[in-house]
Amino acid sequence: MSNPAIICVAITGSVPTKADNPAVPVTLSEQIESTHAAFEAGAAIAHCHVRDDEGKPTSDAERFARLKEGIEAHCPGMIIQLSTGGRSGSGLERGGMLPLRPDMASLSVGSNNFPTRVYENSPQLIEWLAYEMRTYDVKPEIEAFDLSHIYHAKLMHDRGEIPETPYVQFVMGVKNAMPAVKRVFDFYVETVHELFGPYAPWCAAGVGRHQAEVNKWAAEAGGHLRT
Amino acid sequence: MSNPAIICVAITGSVPTKADNPAVPVTLSEQIESTHAAFEAGAAIAHCHVRDDEGKPTSDAERFARLKEGIEAHCPGMIIQLSTGGRSGSGLERGGMLPLRPDMASLSVGSNNFPTRVYENSPQLIEWLAYEMRTYDVKPEIEAFDLSHIYHAKLMHDRGEIPETPYVQFVMGVKNAMPAVKRVFDFYVETVHELFGPYAPWCAAGVGRHQAEVNKWAAEAGGHLRT
Ligand SMILES: [Zn+2]
Ligand SMILES: [Zn+2]
Ligand SMILES: [Zn+2]
Ligand SMILES: [Zn+2]
Repeated sequence: MSNPAIICVAITGSVPTKADNPAVPVTLSEQIESTHAAFEAGAAIAHCHVRDDEGKPTSDAERFARLKEGIEAHCPGMIIQLSTGGRSGSGLERGGMLPLRPDMASLSVGSNNFPTRVYENSPQLIEWLAYEMRTYDVKPEIEAFDLSHIYHAKLMHDRGEIPETPYVQFVMGVKNAMPAVKRVFDFYVETVHELFGPYAPWCAAGVGRHQAEVNKWAAEAGGHLRT
Repeated sequence: MSNPAIICVAITGSVPTKADNPAVPVTLSEQIESTHAAFEAGAAIAHCHVRDDEGKPTSDAERFARLKEGIEAHCPGMIIQLSTGGRSGSGLERGGMLPLRPDMASLSVGSNNFPTRVYENSPQLIEWLAYEMRTYDVKPEIEAFDLSHIYHAKLMHDRGEIPETPYVQFVMGVKNAMPAVKRVFDFYVETVHELFGPYAPWCAAGVGRHQAEVNKWAAEAGGHLRT
């Protein structure tokens, strides 16, 4: 293939627990070994969440620091992307790991519903997270939970809040947000090309049972994959 | 014209104040006379917000009752649509006017950003507002601030939460939500046809300076208009 897909591995996510699946890596050493295995298998990007001692999602910068060090030691050259997603906090603590200067961090640029609640990303929080990412030279991955989020990334790019061409991830199949629908996926790809040019990279993630399907669409359309 | 557009007039909205524009009708009698004038000019639906004595948006059922009575008296046959939108409240009070059994009420089915804050419509609130609308036989107008909201209306319809074919309004041009973009408008229309059939009605509203443009698109594409 002339243009191989970049595979991004999300080792743990923020939702599953050991009770759901005993194989889910939750401790730092489990996460590092699991990332190492994915790296050996060809994953280029590690998308990282961390858990506290009870296994609950947290934004604790100290834990992120140890995970980042572990991945750097075991997976030289792997791109490390830390999550600023809202399952692990609601306010400024969501950006507390950005001073670690990871290669990338996820950035939500709009609000939407999640299965049981509102996923709140106020205009002020978004602006601040983007500011912190510029300050610490962290490349954002824009999490597009809906169509307007791609347009908002364009607006932020035009205003200089996202300096480089935004790298957008389509998140599909989250209950109460955008379902995994092929015609929407196609329109998302067209939208990225329309706003950021024909060669702008993007990636796609199908949540839960939609993962394989969305990965197939992304591979066929020339995008990158989140596994 | 074989299929004339229905014109929906939003007399006051919830944002402008007398300070912005002294011609904005804010008192009940101003609103009723302004609706009457629009009715004489051909408007078929009155989309209604109410204000408190300071001119601030409110969900006060008593005020809605007086506005509804006034419009019924001055504009016989006009369809009355009361707003359950979140600029006038944040919780269950947003549905406090539904026992008045207006012909229609607006229903947001997702969350998104507004110019300075999150427009919060939790899954629980949405479900409750739809339940109240069924209880009091009020037809919802689905306010689509983003693409996933149209898909969510379909899901609610499939679950019986919206009994009739959803009547969707595309809201475009709200800062930090969906901009007024023609290719998105076209995709919205296609989405309604895809989900609800080729004859499903829909309407569109462009906010502020986008009003004339979005109305033109809607008229050309066979939709109804919010003025
Ligand atoms: Zn994540
Ligand atoms: Zn290792
Ligand atoms: Zn309104
Ligand atoms: Zn009158």
